[in-house]
Amino acid sequence: MINVAVLGYGTVGSGVVEVIETNKALLNQRVGQELNVKYILDLRDFPGDPYENKVVHDFETIVNDSEINVICEVMGGVGAAYAFTKQALEKGISVCTSNKELVAKHGAELLELAKANKCSYLFEASVGGGIPIIRPLNTALTAEKIEAIIGILNGTTNYMLTKMEREGADYAEVLKEAQEKGYAERNPEADVEGHDACRKIAIVSSLMMGKNVDSEKIVTEGITKVTAADFVYAKAADSSIKLLAQSKAVGDGEVLAMVAPFMIGKEHPLAMVNDVFNAVFVTGNMLGDSMYYGKGAGKLPTASAVVADVVDCAKSLGTSLPCFWEKEEVKLADVAEVEWKYFLRVSADAKEAVEAAFPGGEMITVAERTEDFGYITTVMKEKDFAAKCAGLGDKVLSKIRLA
Amino acid sequence: MINVAVLGYGTVGSGVVEVIETNKALLNQRVGQELNVKYILDLRDFPGDPYENKVVHDFETIVNDSEINVICEVMGGVGAAYAFTKQALEKGISVCTSNKELVAKHGAELLELAKANKCSYLFEASVGGGIPIIRPLNTALTAEKIEAIIGILNGTTNYMLTKMEREGADYAEVLKEAQEKGYAERNPEADVEGHDACRKIAIVSSLMMGKNVDSEKIVTEGITKVTAADFVYAKAADSSIKLLAQSKAVGDGEVLAMVAPFMIGKEHPLAMVNDVFNAVFVTGNMLGDSMYYGKGAGKLPTASAVVADVVDCAKSLGTSLPCFWEKEEVKLADVAEVEWKYFLRVSADAKEAVEAAFPGGEMITVAERTEDFGYITTVMKEKDFAAKCAGLGDKVLSKIRLA
Repeated sequence: MINVAVLGYGTVGSGVVEVIETNKALLNQRVGQELNVKYILDLRDFPGDPYENKVVHDFETIVNDSEINVICEVMGGVGAAYAFTKQALEKGISVCTSNKELVAKHGAELLELAKANKCSYLFEASVGGGIPIIRPLNTALTAEKIEAIIGILNGTTNYMLTKMEREGADYAEVLKEAQEKGYAERNPEADVEGHDACRKIAIVSSLMMGKNVDSEKIVTEGITKVTAADFVYAKAADSSIKLLAQSKAVGDGEVLAMVAPFMIGKEHPLAMVNDVFNAVFVTGNMLGDSMYYGKGAGKLPTASAVVADVVDCAKSLGTSLPCFWEKEEVKLADVAEVEWKYFLRVSADAKEAVEAAFPGGEMITVAERTEDFGYITTVMKEKDFAAKCAGLGDKVLSKIRLA
Repeated sequence: MINVAVLGYGTVGSGVVEVIETNKALLNQRVGQELNVKYILDLRDFPGDPYENKVVHDFETIVNDSEINVICEVMGGVGAAYAFTKQALEKGISVCTSNKELVAKHGAELLELAKANKCSYLFEASVGGGIPIIRPLNTALTAEKIEAIIGILNGTTNYMLTKMEREGADYAEVLKEAQEKGYAERNPEADVEGHDACRKIAIVSSLMMGKNVDSEKIVTEGITKVTAADFVYAKAADSSIKLLAQSKAVGDGEVLAMVAPFMIGKEHPLAMVNDVFNAVFVTGNMLGDSMYYGKGAGKLPTASAVVADVVDCAKSLGTSLPCFWEKEEVKLADVAEVEWKYFLRVSADAKEAVEAAFPGGEMITVAERTEDFGYITTVMKEKDFAAKCAGLGDKVLSKIRLA
């Protein structure tokens, strides 16, 4: 029997128990023995819950029980979750987690600890919820040198942008609706400012490079400045606007990592990723492009990913599943030197100024908007673009990079 | 050192050698020791080729060399490839293959043989070329009961249908062009009649069910009857036409498996899978929908998948990587009893007859076509649809199911 402890009986934790119960027969077959939830750690009691007798309030009970083989850390945060994970790994107990904050911050260290103690630290659920993306990077694409990863990694903002695109609604309006529906939190900052996507791209970038990418150094812009008017021009240019988290191996072991809204053509596979769905677009040196698409969040998809990790741990007790992510820091490329095209929305009275500042670009006009116009520049560096925009002052109403 | 032999030095075989050479450093790190191509089996000689001294003409040299750890069978066919694979597995040498015909026909038997001899039989490259799909089914989605799989599994036909859609071209015209470009073979039957997609869906259906799905029993229709006119109406219905390979768990351990052209709404993620790209859309009981997208064929993508399997074998020498695919036959559901909507293209003079035969449907008319019209029926069983179509005789010009 494989004994499992679940840390945190919230949304994901109760999902983990539900997945193990619902798919019991199938899981036992795949593990080769019975999977048993022995403990659930939570500060609260759950009278009447079918698993109330498994609830304990003290982590020591779990970590000192020699029958425990695998721990699911689905508490979140970097305080107690970090301490408990370290304690477990030090005892040789494998840990599976959905905690992106902890993985982004201490992934390399915890993997080292797991290796030293012949157990595993797995985190499939930390990026893209139920989309298998960590596993492809670790095993399926094992023959590949990964050159670039572009992801839609946050369901809340993708839901909001999809709404804005389809309904012509403005940012504040869709945020309010997303909050009412429970898709956005009352304090939506982590989602709308791009921090959540930033942590996730830090994790996949670290796996891509085999070294640590510091999430705090990744240039991160959210979606708060995207307007309904921008979508009018995006549509005229047969494009969509998505919050993309990008990571690209450049130059001499450096990585260009960035989170920001981008305009992408409707032909790009990421353009059709709508609502709360997420997707990760991966370019390998042999395989070319591939994409992984699914539900990026939610109780059961996330729990399913945690349980898939539990099965892997259960099948390899006493060994450490390999994951290449060294503590050494990866140097991040200077974004100021990066080149792309840019979309501008500009006050109607500045046509000549824009064409003079950005010669050779493409004007986009639409019948329903006379107060402004859209303009797509030629390819240029971020720093040159910024300097020219500064010269146009408040005539520039919006600017969005083209992916 | 892990010694590898490659059977067949054609497109995929030379790709396998190229992937191993190009990504040598990275592969050696992942395997934990050096990966070495020791033999290449081919009937031909390759004077001047950098690997000419590795070429042998006799399989016995390979199978009797106790240093060989893994064999890549990329010859194709079910004759010598079958015999060689059996011989290797019987000696405990793991085999990785891209040979869908062999896997579809003898997969369950060869897996059993691998298990008995503590080695592995892996076939990631046999479905969807470079798209990791076998691995998600075997490991990433291990906590899932898979309920349905819908795939675009043939690049040639998807290229042709994309051309027809974009250019308004007719079947014969795009086939000729695809043949000229080398995307379609001179005898295109295996692709255009759906046999290739059928073998692939048989493989993934077998993995989904854990038992054998006989490819010869899968109802298979190709794309030869799809016309430019059908695409005119598809566009008017905001839909696309794709050759879909479907597999759905139904009733009491039965599976509904089918390959046929389907009309799908533009909002469906599979609708944006264009050109030679492939994708597999998977529905699990916990995860909901996920999709895997990439290049379904081609030298390097296919070779990359074979080499990923080689790495897995190399890391688990002396053990058999588990794969649930028993020899027991799965009962296929009777397609006559299946229900969907249908698109009809009908001679202009039969409007009343169609509305009488299929009450409650939806008429589609377009300005540019006066000789016929489109019609979408309500949901009905295949057998009832067929009976009513028969009553309309040659007034029905096209019929395509709706997915």
